[in-house]
Amino acid sequence: MTDGKSNLSFVLNKPFDVTFAEKPIPQLSSPEEVLVSVDYTGICGSDVHYWVHGSIGQFVVKEPMVLGHESAGTVVQVGSSVTSLRVGDRVALEPGYPCRHCRPCLGGKYNLCPDMRFAATPPYDGTLTGFWKAPADFCYKLPPSMTLQEGALMEPLAVAVHITKQADVKPGQSVVVLGAGPVGLLCAAVARAYGASTVVAVDIVQSKLDTASALAATHTYLSQRVAPQENAAALLAQCDLPNGADAVIDASGAEPSIQMAQYVVRTGGTYVQGGMGKSEITFPIMEMCIKEVTMKGSFRYGSGDYDLAIELVRTGKIDVKMLITDVVPFAKAEEAFKKVKEGKAIKVLIAGPNREI
Amino acid sequence: MTDGKSNLSFVLNKPFDVTFAEKPIPQLSSPEEVLVSVDYTGICGSDVHYWVHGSIGQFVVKEPMVLGHESAGTVVQVGSSVTSLRVGDRVALEPGYPCRHCRPCLGGKYNLCPDMRFAATPPYDGTLTGFWKAPADFCYKLPPSMTLQEGALMEPLAVAVHITKQADVKPGQSVVVLGAGPVGLLCAAVARAYGASTVVAVDIVQSKLDTASALAATHTYLSQRVAPQENAAALLAQCDLPNGADAVIDASGAEPSIQMAQYVVRTGGTYVQGGMGKSEITFPIMEMCIKEVTMKGSFRYGSGDYDLAIELVRTGKIDVKMLITDVVPFAKAEEAFKKVKEGKAIKVLIAGPNREI
Amino acid sequence: MTDGKSNLSFVLNKPFDVTFAEKPIPQLSSPEEVLVSVDYTGICGSDVHYWVHGSIGQFVVKEPMVLGHESAGTVVQVGSSVTSLRVGDRVALEPGYPCRHCRPCLGGKYNLCPDMRFAATPPYDGTLTGFWKAPADFCYKLPPSMTLQEGALMEPLAVAVHITKQADVKPGQSVVVLGAGPVGLLCAAVARAYGASTVVAVDIVQSKLDTASALAATHTYLSQRVAPQENAAALLAQCDLPNGADAVIDASGAEPSIQMAQYVVRTGGTYVQGGMGKSEITFPIMEMCIKEVTMKGSFRYGSGDYDLAIELVRTGKIDVKMLITDVVPFAKAEEAFKKVKEGKAIKVLIAGPNREI
Amino acid sequence: MTDGKSNLSFVLNKPFDVTFAEKPIPQLSSPEEVLVSVDYTGICGSDVHYWVHGSIGQFVVKEPMVLGHESAGTVVQVGSSVTSLRVGDRVALEPGYPCRHCRPCLGGKYNLCPDMRFAATPPYDGTLTGFWKAPADFCYKLPPSMTLQEGALMEPLAVAVHITKQADVKPGQSVVVLGAGPVGLLCAAVARAYGASTVVAVDIVQSKLDTASALAATHTYLSQRVAPQENAAALLAQCDLPNGADAVIDASGAEPSIQMAQYVVRTGGTYVQGGMGKSEITFPIMEMCIKEVTMKGSFRYGSGDYDLAIELVRTGKIDVKMLITDVVPFAKAEEAFKKVKEGKAIKVLIAGPNREI
Repeated sequence: MTDGKSNLSFVLNKPFDVTFAEKPIPQLSSPEEVLVSVDYTGICGSDVHYWVHGSIGQFVVKEPMVLGHESAGTVVQVGSSVTSLRVGDRVALEPGYPCRHCRPCLGGKYNLCPDMRFAATPPYDGTLTGFWKAPADFCYKLPPSMTLQEGALMEPLAVAVHITKQADVKPGQSVVVLGAGPVGLLCAAVARAYGASTVVAVDIVQSKLDTASALAATHTYLSQRVAPQENAAALLAQCDLPNGADAVIDASGAEPSIQMAQYVVRTGGTYVQGGMGKSEITFPIMEMCIKEVTMKGSFRYGSGDYDLAIELVRTGKIDVKMLITDVVPFAKAEEAFKKVKEGKAIKVLIAGPNREI
Repeated sequence: MTDGKSNLSFVLNKPFDVTFAEKPIPQLSSPEEVLVSVDYTGICGSDVHYWVHGSIGQFVVKEPMVLGHESAGTVVQVGSSVTSLRVGDRVALEPGYPCRHCRPCLGGKYNLCPDMRFAATPPYDGTLTGFWKAPADFCYKLPPSMTLQEGALMEPLAVAVHITKQADVKPGQSVVVLGAGPVGLLCAAVARAYGASTVVAVDIVQSKLDTASALAATHTYLSQRVAPQENAAALLAQCDLPNGADAVIDASGAEPSIQMAQYVVRTGGTYVQGGMGKSEITFPIMEMCIKEVTMKGSFRYGSGDYDLAIELVRTGKIDVKMLITDVVPFAKAEEAFKKVKEGKAIKVLIAGPNREI
Repeated sequence: MTDGKSNLSFVLNKPFDVTFAEKPIPQLSSPEEVLVSVDYTGICGSDVHYWVHGSIGQFVVKEPMVLGHESAGTVVQVGSSVTSLRVGDRVALEPGYPCRHCRPCLGGKYNLCPDMRFAATPPYDGTLTGFWKAPADFCYKLPPSMTLQEGALMEPLAVAVHITKQADVKPGQSVVVLGAGPVGLLCAAVARAYGASTVVAVDIVQSKLDTASALAATHTYLSQRVAPQENAAALLAQCDLPNGADAVIDASGAEPSIQMAQYVVRTGGTYVQGGMGKSEITFPIMEMCIKEVTMKGSFRYGSGDYDLAIELVRTGKIDVKMLITDVVPFAKAEEAFKKVKEGKAIKVLIAGPNREI
Repeated sequence: MTDGKSNLSFVLNKPFDVTFAEKPIPQLSSPEEVLVSVDYTGICGSDVHYWVHGSIGQFVVKEPMVLGHESAGTVVQVGSSVTSLRVGDRVALEPGYPCRHCRPCLGGKYNLCPDMRFAATPPYDGTLTGFWKAPADFCYKLPPSMTLQEGALMEPLAVAVHITKQADVKPGQSVVVLGAGPVGLLCAAVARAYGASTVVAVDIVQSKLDTASALAATHTYLSQRVAPQENAAALLAQCDLPNGADAVIDASGAEPSIQMAQYVVRTGGTYVQGGMGKSEITFPIMEMCIKEVTMKGSFRYGSGDYDLAIELVRTGKIDVKMLITDVVPFAKAEEAFKKVKEGKAIKVLIAGPNREI
């Protein structure tokens, strides 16, 4: 299975200092686990952020840490209690493992587990490595029609699924998505799958809006450097939404977007904060108060999100292949990070160390 | 019925300029309406705000306007289709009348009706008058055990009911209420009626906290002039809530309170913006995002809120009499406004022009 | 507008005794109303039931009653307060008018109004007539792409929308619909629009299943004369649903279907009783109890249902034209009823008395 | 800890054939587990049913099985990872252990886990034994004010909490509980804690209704041998509920009660099947359909239910001591079963083999 195979890993030592290191292949420590040979890993904005800054908020890289958490691979070993998977199965890897014992875990909100061990979040290593050990129930078998490259996209798609579930989108509704990076694009696509008839993508870069239109958006709005109320009014006029949008999702984390969103959402509508950004902003709180907006945060993904992500691709509702800009061999991992940092790609995949592109 | 009775009204001409004016007694214009002789009217912060500033946000007093909207009275005439009320019935008056035809109205959210006609909100006159005309279904019969003075308190109690419903409080939960003015006090009481086992009242004035304890709070916290995180940490330590509060209600509208609230609410908890204040504030948006807080605005009251307000008093769960600081005759309305403005009272009631105190 | 026009109506005197009668054209009695010239009316199972039996449950035809309630028409007069419609607008008619004052109405559940006046439900006349008077907000403007014949189908589609909303269908789920008459077919279509990936149509007539496949179903199951558990097991095996279906909708009202449904629905799933049938049946109550099934009734349609019905057709998600078997002139109304009674048609439309087919 | 202690167990061999057997003291098999010395165990109707019939539905006692699952005890050993409990802590034991890996478990519905191992449900032994091994998170520390005898009542109270949560009771509502056995009595008490203002207990035995009144009910109804509609009408008239009850809970499992319930629940209300009984009954399905009743099953208890049960007792909202008819030493276990079978007791507790009464 793993004989003669490499467990070469892509390690962040400190900001802008990465190395390749051969690490021991993980040993199964529970009969519920499986060992997976990693085939493809996408680069996430958070990976780049650690690479550049060495930290995200309270999470600081103090020891060298393997990067990466958007992966798919092939099962090479199964624990003795595992019945859902076999050697050779191709799987999408959910990269965070909750405690299963706390109140959030028992209550079905495991993404809020305070003892979560999440790949490439200090002090836990990530998936840019040869072999990855995981509980079988956090490895999702890919249907025959899906490729392993698509499988690596299930992580950002699960993020978008979770955000869109928070927005409680119903058929026939209007949804505005602020930010057309990978997660924003996927939110637009999930909103369509939820039956939204109007899905407006918003960004400050026209080429991203073009991708949004190709993927899912029914309308786009190129955000202007004007007051948030003005941007909101222009968007609503342009998209024929005189009463505002039923749901608004921020996938940008940008202060002007978050402000604009409060004037875009209709009275009684829903706003979801999906994007990460500045910890404090100037916020039009009374606008959300008197309109009785329901505003929700969204953090990672939880119960059923990976299942739905895979089902949406299997049934042809979302074409994630459109988002894959490039696939590079493991040896070129650092170059791939540079490319993403420069904004030259939507999503770059890095092949595992034990496979060709 | 109305023979020889006065329809004297308390009219705001412009800031700090009020007069008493005799107005025509309203005529029923629909068979579904009733005419009510107003017995008592409480003074609300918004009444005082109009009196001082002549406007609230976009609502500007351009023509002289009768003030007041927290009233109870006695039915003196009923329309031909009315079966729910009789002459002589004592009623609490819901003072806003929706269109009944728009999407929010048909969908059960009439408080969000864009065509709402709300008492003492320009251009509509208020209830500090002799007789008030209203649809019968917006007049709530008081049970025999309730006084008309208590009936006048049903308006702020309905506000508190609506806010607390938005907070989705469950038995056994912990609820923190920021601000111990009339609405905050009543929110604390409603939270108890919803079964919360820990209800923390927060204010910067100790005497208000004392009232909160007497009425409903299980704990109080005297807010300090420190950073919001510090206040939050101190509150949670003092009240033995190591994981944060299940629900947090802001009934103050004050920026430091709203900020503090985000550090008080637990991961996965609920925050309700009930208080009115500055339209824009500095807001720790990432705190609510990564904790997946559900944040809701609350605006006035809607379906079932008056019913529940009355039921909570009828069954002895809430004692609103505690909040009545003073009752004055109609002729002393202006003095009553001064008293409230000076913060010398929790709730002052003004008797109707056709009755003694 | 109505000059020289007929208000010929199709009247049920007693079972199997129908006549055409010229009736006075309705006069607007409120500024919120409009007058509509009826263009097309579909025949519903309940119309046929009144024609055959003279009653449905507690509703008994004691006086001659105009039949029909699935209609679309053209606005010919608008009340003075109406701003949403103009003369010439083509509209789908929602045929039941609630009181707008009771607790269900104010709470957003107007379909549960105890004072509902519903077309062709005794003692209220129906829409198989020349002109129909209705509140403007219960007349839904058809988009340019929709025909008036499609408009007449909005009533059964609104029934299906309401049922499917009760089932709380989510993207990626499995939904089984029992009964492939017009409402069952439309439920299958709405379930697809809600994102269900597996939609199983069930009937005892193969040709109805063929229509279901053409319209919306991903799978069909021809129900057998065996025990409900056996039918359920065969269906689940055939459709690869080893854990049961997420949601099951009964649109048949048939006892064997309702029984079978309880073995088809998964643990924790949802069952909706949409079809009307025998008032009492033998029911496997412990099956629903220990599986913690959520079971809901569904009655007519309410807030937002017509809006969504129209939006689903406008956006091409549902093709209701497929269900129109025949269109006949008003003079042939009785023959049309016979045809429907004999099961020779899915949906037959009767043109209004003032128009050609 | 366990030195010299007995692990005497009360074993059911076959119907009416029970013995005491000394069994090996369980060894901790995971660092997350604790060992508990059992102090008190209540007798449940299901225990009696196994004793009398040797089976419940599909669950058949094939091998000798230790009875009992309503227990509280004292921690005598803690696993190396356990931080929430210490030796000496007094705990209520949740007696069913889910897999933590299936979709229901991850989704927060662990009571629906298909691989649940539940005490005294074949083939798993129960808690009428000396020492019990359990995951720490399924052992709930009792507050200082609660006795171990009260702790043994947390199991039936958790059942009642789960049922009442399913009923979605809100403050001010009316709740009717059918059946005044231990679970029905506790449902009435929980409904009060949820703020219901009217709680009607229903039974065919007056003495049980007297207990209900003493514990929690605001009204009682002695069910008569008449048609379900008649019983329903009489109850609603007697309790001044002209529109029906907001929520109805069946805690009896009796066919006449379940039938009556459908006529007691209001249009748009909620019905919960909490009681176990005949697998099939004659059911007025159209009544629930046209009233759009939401009907839910309830099975055991899940996330948060034990927590709330304890909190309700700690805060004085529910007095479970009232339900304890008798406490007997371990040696008299069989006599206690006889007493319960004969209906001579509400709840009998059996002391553990290592303690006095």
